[in-house]
Amino acid sequence: MSFANLALQTGMDAIVTGVNLVWVLTVTFLIFFMHAGFAMLEAGQVRSKNVANQLTKNLLTWSVGVIVFFLAGAAVSTIVGGLTGGGSYSITGAFMGLYSPEAGSVTAWTDWLFGAVFAMTAATIVSGAVAGRAKLRAYVSYTIVLAAVIYPVVVGFTWAGGFLATLGFHDFAGGMIVHGMGGLAGLTAAWIIGPRMDRFNSDGSVNVIPGHSLSFAVLGTLILAFGWYGFNVGTAAAPLAMDGGEVTLGSFSYVGRVALVTTLGMAAGAIGAAAVALQKTGKVDTLYVANGLLAGLVGITSIADAIVWPGAIVVGLLAGAQLPIVFGFVEKRLKIDDVCAVFPVHGSAGILGALLFPLFATSFWNGSASFVGLAIPQIAGVAVITAWTVGATFVVFRIIKAMGELRVSAEHEREGLDTSEHGVDTYPEFGKPDTLTDGSGVPVDGTVRTDGGINGSDDE
Amino acid sequence: MSFANLALQTGMDAIVTGVNLVWVLTVTFLIFFMHAGFAMLEAGQVRSKNVANQLTKNLLTWSVGVIVFFLAGAAVSTIVGGLTGGGSYSITGAFMGLYSPEAGSVTAWTDWLFGAVFAMTAATIVSGAVAGRAKLRAYVSYTIVLAAVIYPVVVGFTWAGGFLATLGFHDFAGGMIVHGMGGLAGLTAAWIIGPRMDRFNSDGSVNVIPGHSLSFAVLGTLILAFGWYGFNVGTAAAPLAMDGGEVTLGSFSYVGRVALVTTLGMAAGAIGAAAVALQKTGKVDTLYVANGLLAGLVGITSIADAIVWPGAIVVGLLAGAQLPIVFGFVEKRLKIDDVCAVFPVHGSAGILGALLFPLFATSFWNGSASFVGLAIPQIAGVAVITAWTVGATFVVFRIIKAMGELRVSAEHEREGLDTSEHGVDTYPEFGKPDTLTDGSGVPVDGTVRTDGGINGSDDE
Amino acid sequence: MSFANLALQTGMDAIVTGVNLVWVLTVTFLIFFMHAGFAMLEAGQVRSKNVANQLTKNLLTWSVGVIVFFLAGAAVSTIVGGLTGGGSYSITGAFMGLYSPEAGSVTAWTDWLFGAVFAMTAATIVSGAVAGRAKLRAYVSYTIVLAAVIYPVVVGFTWAGGFLATLGFHDFAGGMIVHGMGGLAGLTAAWIIGPRMDRFNSDGSVNVIPGHSLSFAVLGTLILAFGWYGFNVGTAAAPLAMDGGEVTLGSFSYVGRVALVTTLGMAAGAIGAAAVALQKTGKVDTLYVANGLLAGLVGITSIADAIVWPGAIVVGLLAGAQLPIVFGFVEKRLKIDDVCAVFPVHGSAGILGALLFPLFATSFWNGSASFVGLAIPQIAGVAVITAWTVGATFVVFRIIKAMGELRVSAEHEREGLDTSEHGVDTYPEFGKPDTLTDGSGVPVDGTVRTDGGINGSDDE
Repeated sequence: MSFANLALQTGMDAIVTGVNLVWVLTVTFLIFFMHAGFAMLEAGQVRSKNVANQLTKNLLTWSVGVIVFFLAGAAVSTIVGGLTGGGSYSITGAFMGLYSPEAGSVTAWTDWLFGAVFAMTAATIVSGAVAGRAKLRAYVSYTIVLAAVIYPVVVGFTWAGGFLATLGFHDFAGGMIVHGMGGLAGLTAAWIIGPRMDRFNSDGSVNVIPGHSLSFAVLGTLILAFGWYGFNVGTAAAPLAMDGGEVTLGSFSYVGRVALVTTLGMAAGAIGAAAVALQKTGKVDTLYVANGLLAGLVGITSIADAIVWPGAIVVGLLAGAQLPIVFGFVEKRLKIDDVCAVFPVHGSAGILGALLFPLFATSFWNGSASFVGLAIPQIAGVAVITAWTVGATFVVFRIIKAMGELRVSAEHEREGLDTSEHGVDTYPEFGKPDTLTDGSGVPVDGTVRTDGGINGSDDE
Repeated sequence: MSFANLALQTGMDAIVTGVNLVWVLTVTFLIFFMHAGFAMLEAGQVRSKNVANQLTKNLLTWSVGVIVFFLAGAAVSTIVGGLTGGGSYSITGAFMGLYSPEAGSVTAWTDWLFGAVFAMTAATIVSGAVAGRAKLRAYVSYTIVLAAVIYPVVVGFTWAGGFLATLGFHDFAGGMIVHGMGGLAGLTAAWIIGPRMDRFNSDGSVNVIPGHSLSFAVLGTLILAFGWYGFNVGTAAAPLAMDGGEVTLGSFSYVGRVALVTTLGMAAGAIGAAAVALQKTGKVDTLYVANGLLAGLVGITSIADAIVWPGAIVVGLLAGAQLPIVFGFVEKRLKIDDVCAVFPVHGSAGILGALLFPLFATSFWNGSASFVGLAIPQIAGVAVITAWTVGATFVVFRIIKAMGELRVSAEHEREGLDTSEHGVDTYPEFGKPDTLTDGSGVPVDGTVRTDGGINGSDDE
Repeated sequence: MSFANLALQTGMDAIVTGVNLVWVLTVTFLIFFMHAGFAMLEAGQVRSKNVANQLTKNLLTWSVGVIVFFLAGAAVSTIVGGLTGGGSYSITGAFMGLYSPEAGSVTAWTDWLFGAVFAMTAATIVSGAVAGRAKLRAYVSYTIVLAAVIYPVVVGFTWAGGFLATLGFHDFAGGMIVHGMGGLAGLTAAWIIGPRMDRFNSDGSVNVIPGHSLSFAVLGTLILAFGWYGFNVGTAAAPLAMDGGEVTLGSFSYVGRVALVTTLGMAAGAIGAAAVALQKTGKVDTLYVANGLLAGLVGITSIADAIVWPGAIVVGLLAGAQLPIVFGFVEKRLKIDDVCAVFPVHGSAGILGALLFPLFATSFWNGSASFVGLAIPQIAGVAVITAWTVGATFVVFRIIKAMGELRVSAEHEREGLDTSEHGVDTYPEFGKPDTLTDGSGVPVDGTVRTDGGINGSDDE
């Protein structure tokens, strides 16, 4: 014991625990607030007839998902981590919180909640991809499986000590584990469910169906960026550590760098996307800038502990620049209707960040680590997480589809899910053009356009 | 003194104070941000012609209320606490901050502000109940009385050490003291002022007047949930304590449990309301889910320090499930026009949580506390707070009514309070149906519906 | 060394650093979130045809500005501070972070980010003044100059130790340095670019062009107030200090007073503006209340460390009350089209607060400081900052204007910048009156009014 007496040692322990609790709770609340960001970002990008549906899905993702993750998901991570990582584990221990409702160390529940807000971030991404046609019960069913199994298995492989962790896979705050996983799940879901009516024409051309409010979309973007500081900087988790009986700064010694590169990554992401949009169309599409900022954040998330500032600007620019390109590829080549661009924002940007790690992880470059030695675990990690996420999501959505429960009827899609699923009208006092959803596939001026891009601003 | 020298003891004192200040300021800011949540939640639930009025009331609730609470309310709590609790008190001492503007301990003003954001939460609830017909000056006058007397007396009886505290009444973070009180005041106010025109028909049937934007309502819900973490978890106030000269975690030793049950309570609340809505109408009304989440939060607020996780799920489900039922009772039986459903969300959910305390307060179950011994103070507390709040609110609103100052003219109500009270048009560029407010009582398709429920989705 | 052994001293150092990092990061995130507030406040106050443009400008202000401030602005402050303050400085040292991307103390990057969010607050104010007619590239070009030079020079003169600091100029959290500077830059920019078409008639009368959504404007106001707690209270920067080897509360010993007077200042600001609006027009204009709350915050920002509570109420009332008066003066006498009222909110309120300092800075009244001795540096500071900001902004905007790049064509202004600059429609589903922007200057009922005031509620 380093300190002169027991009272002092106990007091120092209390200080370390107390300060760390203040920090982890604060950033957990910030990450929770990202749900308001997702709700607004997605609501703004859907038609006004589907807004209440999108909002309800977001509310239920959190409400149903967090209870499922509490009852099952967290334990599944622990068990999968132990099983695949060769470590010891105990099923009773994994579920201990449930069996001993009053038990747990002082920090057990706060640690769980910190994990839960990450899990729910992954879950909520999917709803944006299948907007405007997925049945509420289908979406909620998938969310239950995601929160109980699909996401926890990814965490089990990695953060919970499973075989990818053993291999050396690095993902600081979940650029791949959370965002990449969510984006891949969304893309798979959008693929299985098929596009909204009128989205693609039989001659191969595409129609753009603009969202009903860019204001809500940008508000959501900025709420997400605010919460993301909790996500990334908060992952530099403990302001204080007790190291050999002595108080140290622990991982907080590099917290400033995480805050810096998170800032530069998001800024460069917006600029990268704006530059590509400008080059493609001569105009700066607002949604590209907003989603580019988010893609920059996703790209930097997995390497924010390891990268120096020039690298952060490069990664941000790349993550932003790939957004319009990947969005166009998904839309025009794959003909997948990813309504809120969740794959280019979360999926491909997350994969990009994970794969760029060996190139930019300056603080991991040292005698013992070769470039190849850093690269192989990243490639393996991306491959395994992609295969598992796409495979599991594919199976679940195919089962729901086979049961005839995946997609609302064409009539309900035409009138909007707000009416058919929720019995409400989001904006009963604001006029909505009637001709937009007649199902004839004829583009209607000002609301459905044929020139591609999230907003229809591409003229390529 | 436990520590080896004076410098160390002084340093430890500074650390305890500094860390506690960081926490109390952070959560105070979060609770303040709930005003943005209330503003959006209420604005979304009113007609577009009354939005600016609702927003202005929210701005003035805070601005006028917090100054009144500073000049009078806080001192009234202290005096009432001392008077009714048999403790000593000093009128000069209660107002000391005012007489000695520079004085006060390091934490005096932060403690005051922490109390003030709770007081303003109670105050702002009322505006949602009387939306669309209360004169601005009537509402502001009531807010002044609430901030100076009505709420401070409730705090005096309880948290400030008054007779309900002596009796053993338990309310952790204000489920009854803040939310129950606000919901009861709102119900009373809505009762005295009478319903909006066209709300109830002479044959006893009801018309639903949907709010103008579910997007704002859900945004407000999620901002409130974010701030509520400050409200509940923040009430586990001090990360560190100085106990007999030694530093301890103090009340932060159970902070994880508060965070956990707050999370599960809100999630279960949304699910409970969604389940009842689905059972009643076959559809999942968005506002029921959103308000159910809030009702779950209210229900768990008074017992979040005492309940284990299975209890939190049960309390949340009950608080959410009672929402559609109580809303229907208030609307169809009492014929009270509680525009933003503030009574089922804050009032009945707050009462429910306070009364469920003896059943779920696991950590209070011990040799010295019988069930009856826990129940009696809760029943007494609910009865006293209800009687005082309803009585005082009744008197104030009756006086304002007798002066002819309570309600705008029928003409002004028809054209909307934005024009008559504020001279503005909230949305000058978006079309609004003209026929909606013609005062004839004929339901207009798409905007006024006859089937009941917050959004008109009930078909019972 | 005060402590008994080296481990203890090291541990205490770690605690001080860790706790201070928790605080500075938390408040930095809050200040960052003010960008969402500015985006909503400004978007709500512009026409629906210019909303996406306003949102994009806000996104790019942050994204481009923060990178420029990182690469150049922060170093320019340091150099200007050293050059004009007579202190030593090193150009290499000022740019050290750039040359040594991994270097820096534990707190170097967090300190930079704390400074950067203040810089970006100043930058984003300008976009509200030139809304609806500035070219995107012109605005972004100016933002680059502001972030690299104009704002950093102001900081160099003051906070970075330059000649105004030497003189004794006091500005606690940037009421003049950040907000005054931003408001003055906005006014100058609006003057050079000229008014929107239809804003002023040839007979000298004015038309009011109401913003498209008071809901967004009030949401933005409340987000800003939330973030402002970080701005002001956060500037009482360090919860803990190491003073002569002993831990103390440092500047946190007065943090409660900063929180209190910030609260009272904003509340009084809303009341002051509401009272003047009521007196002028008989109605309580929502935007006056909202902007008055913000003006109260600006007014108190420069003196929040020095003022006692009665002074805070007076300063708030004055800052709020001057808003309608100064807005009317700028509109009707100067005929400058300051779209979002940024000068009365940030400029004149900031100047007012800086000049009121000697009258209200109770904690600076002592034997060594005469009233004149306090007043002269304030007058000099306001004069220098005003001259520099107006002059530099004038030159930059005149250059851009001379290049023909400042203002969009009349045709583009008429159709809206969303279409011409971004190729998007913010609200494709909501009807917009066609006749509003026909360029004929004829006021259209309900959308363009001739009676003055932010919303047209003035009838003087």
